Amino acid sequence: MSLIRDLSLQAAKAARKLAVLDTDRKDRVLRDMAKAIRANEEHILKANLVDLDNAKQAQLSDAMMDRLTLNTQRIEDMAVGIETIVSLADPVGIQRELGQRPNGLEISKMRVPLGVVCMIYEARPNVTADAGALCFKSGNAVILRGGKEALASSKAISEILQNVLVEHDLPAELITVVPNPDRKLMQELLEQRDFIDVVIPRGGEGLINYVTENSKIPVIQHFKGVCHLYIDADADFETAIQLLINGKTQRTGVCNAIEGLIVHKDIAAQILPIVSDVLLRHSVTINACERSSEHIASCNVIAESDFGEEYLDLEIAVKTVDSMDDALDHIARFGSNHTEVICTQNDVTAKRFQRSVDASVVMVNASSRFSDGSQLGLGAEIGIATTKLHAYGPMGLESLTTEKYLVNGNGQIRA
Amino acid sequence: MSLIRDLSLQAAKAARKLAVLDTDRKDRVLRDMAKAIRANEEHILKANLVDLDNAKQAQLSDAMMDRLTLNTQRIEDMAVGIETIVSLADPVGIQRELGQRPNGLEISKMRVPLGVVCMIYEARPNVTADAGALCFKSGNAVILRGGKEALASSKAISEILQNVLVEHDLPAELITVVPNPDRKLMQELLEQRDFIDVVIPRGGEGLINYVTENSKIPVIQHFKGVCHLYIDADADFETAIQLLINGKTQRTGVCNAIEGLIVHKDIAAQILPIVSDVLLRHSVTINACERSSEHIASCNVIAESDFGEEYLDLEIAVKTVDSMDDALDHIARFGSNHTEVICTQNDVTAKRFQRSVDASVVMVNASSRFSDGSQLGLGAEIGIATTKLHAYGPMGLESLTTEKYLVNGNGQIRA
Repeated sequence: MSLIRDLSLQAAKAARKLAVLDTDRKDRVLRDMAKAIRANEEHILKANLVDLDNAKQAQLSDAMMDRLTLNTQRIEDMAVGIETIVSLADPVGIQRELGQRPNGLEISKMRVPLGVVCMIYEARPNVTADAGALCFKSGNAVILRGGKEALASSKAISEILQNVLVEHDLPAELITVVPNPDRKLMQELLEQRDFIDVVIPRGGEGLINYVTENSKIPVIQHFKGVCHLYIDADADFETAIQLLINGKTQRTGVCNAIEGLIVHKDIAAQILPIVSDVLLRHSVTINACERSSEHIASCNVIAESDFGEEYLDLEIAVKTVDSMDDALDHIARFGSNHTEVICTQNDVTAKRFQRSVDASVVMVNASSRFSDGSQLGLGAEIGIATTKLHAYGPMGLESLTTEKYLVNGNGQIRA
Repeated sequence: MSLIRDLSLQAAKAARKLAVLDTDRKDRVLRDMAKAIRANEEHILKANLVDLDNAKQAQLSDAMMDRLTLNTQRIEDMAVGIETIVSLADPVGIQRELGQRPNGLEISKMRVPLGVVCMIYEARPNVTADAGALCFKSGNAVILRGGKEALASSKAISEILQNVLVEHDLPAELITVVPNPDRKLMQELLEQRDFIDVVIPRGGEGLINYVTENSKIPVIQHFKGVCHLYIDADADFETAIQLLINGKTQRTGVCNAIEGLIVHKDIAAQILPIVSDVLLRHSVTINACERSSEHIASCNVIAESDFGEEYLDLEIAVKTVDSMDDALDHIARFGSNHTEVICTQNDVTAKRFQRSVDASVVMVNASSRFSDGSQLGLGAEIGIATTKLHAYGPMGLESLTTEKYLVNGNGQIRA
């Protein structure tokens, strides 16, 4: 049996044992994992140095080097992250009644783990601890296939977690790091649908497309974030400007940043000069439709087909619309189902916007930057799904489970 | 633009209109659809004759001819099926509160349609009406790609439903039948991930494997049903025998029939002679492990590797085990995650079985034949999922929806 098939099979076997473990036992293991991460700081830093040396030789970008680098604070963050997961409610075993059938059968649903989760990610050693702990708490085995740049760090972290598993009489195979970042092995991994229940890629669009195109296992996808702020005719201007500046400039390289501003025509002449002023003061490049450009001090006039760009930078597209329906059409055409925001004081308008917009997170009078698992109260986050099947939006523990039916009778047979 | 890409795009556009329609309006449309099906009985039967003539020339099997044939009763059943869907609760718009964050943001989730559902099925004209109505009620556009054998009937049915849509000022593209059963067009359909949100194949293993291997869109799979009945040491014998006979013989060609019997060793010597007697009287061929065979009047002795067969016939595998844990291992190895049944009077044992078995439906003292959407109270059923992502087990209206996050604030920005 090949290495990949064998490790997938072992993970599936291990998952069966974990599926029936009670919450207290899982939490005890997690607390020991956090302790072990702290106790082995030096060991992790030593492994991280190997990755950093290789990265220097490979002349990786500063951003990549930064993501790769561990230090005392970041290792402490990992441990705290695991402790946060201890504090989250365990979704496994939660039962909801669906009622009694006329023949007396009692029907209910029970939440159960998915089984084996495969995470495919880039050079972020902290994902190894985060995903390992999230999958463990939700009763899943996890196979971690990280970028080659972080391999030594990931192995060190996973070995520490595995040692804790073994101390608690649990199979080490509950947390497996693919020991070789070869693409051929990744392809083989994506074919193990007998053993792996879901693949979650985290990283750039290239990686996600590769996994989607090649996987025989269901994939939960996280594509780009083209998020809009729609300033309604009934908006409070001060709030609108705050949401705009926070959404566009607080951090630019993230998927929940604002990339498009939509303004209702009734207020365009009043608010756009303020928008223009404040964006230019924040060094934001403005790309505007012709109608908007009349009220903006300095901008590029762009065509309809130029909208929908994910700038990930101090740059924004501005569009004036005749009505909220036109704003909804614009979002349907150019949005990416990630996060959309309306600024309005009108409750009816707000409700209609929230009901109508097809995005994983729809906000009223709040910054798009809150679209994130920990900000929404999920605790740690395993990813953000921008496709709708199984999970939509920030994914917490519950997204790593499914429900089975329970049927209880006293000998009923079908006529 | 190609035919397939265009019809997928049109379906996605139409879906946006349906997503915000309220329940009353949807129910009025559905009632008119049921009426229209009844009023156009002759038209449907005429189209069905075309399919039946072609089928005779192609010398299709009797079973296939039967599935293909419509008559007054079956058309009435279709209309009643649609009316049943009217009576089901609409999952769309249901909101659940997740609480308030320390910064005052109110977080909730709202159930929304998936968008566009693509059904791929074989020669069953009734699926056109069932799936059309289920998708409509759950707010989804549907693209129906049925087998070529039922094409004329499916077209006639979908045209009737489309006329009702148009009378209600709704886009006909909410229910689209792919006009050409060419495999190349099906392949193209499976690539429309910009417009189609989920593919649900219904039919034989060949079809399901083809769709799974070739789809770029998430697929909800329904593989085979290898269901077991486990008779525990604490079982009531009379109940056990009833469940066995009903599960094995009431209908044999279905996925929720019993294919394997597992017996606890402590009662094997008492119950197996009764099992043997009653199965043989029902002309069931018995394939047994060596240990079981000692108590069975007439059987084939089979090896461990011969278990796990989906007989779909009057045939069964019988295994004696030392403990419930061994029964659980047997099910994990040979079951197909469909339906598993325990017969026991011991509540602790029953609970442990239900918690431990990884199957979409786990029953205590009830016939496996109840594993079906309408028997479990879901109303009509769009399929049964034996994979765990998104849906697991019989799929009703709720399985055709997902949840988005709603965030309500009063100007909160992220620090």
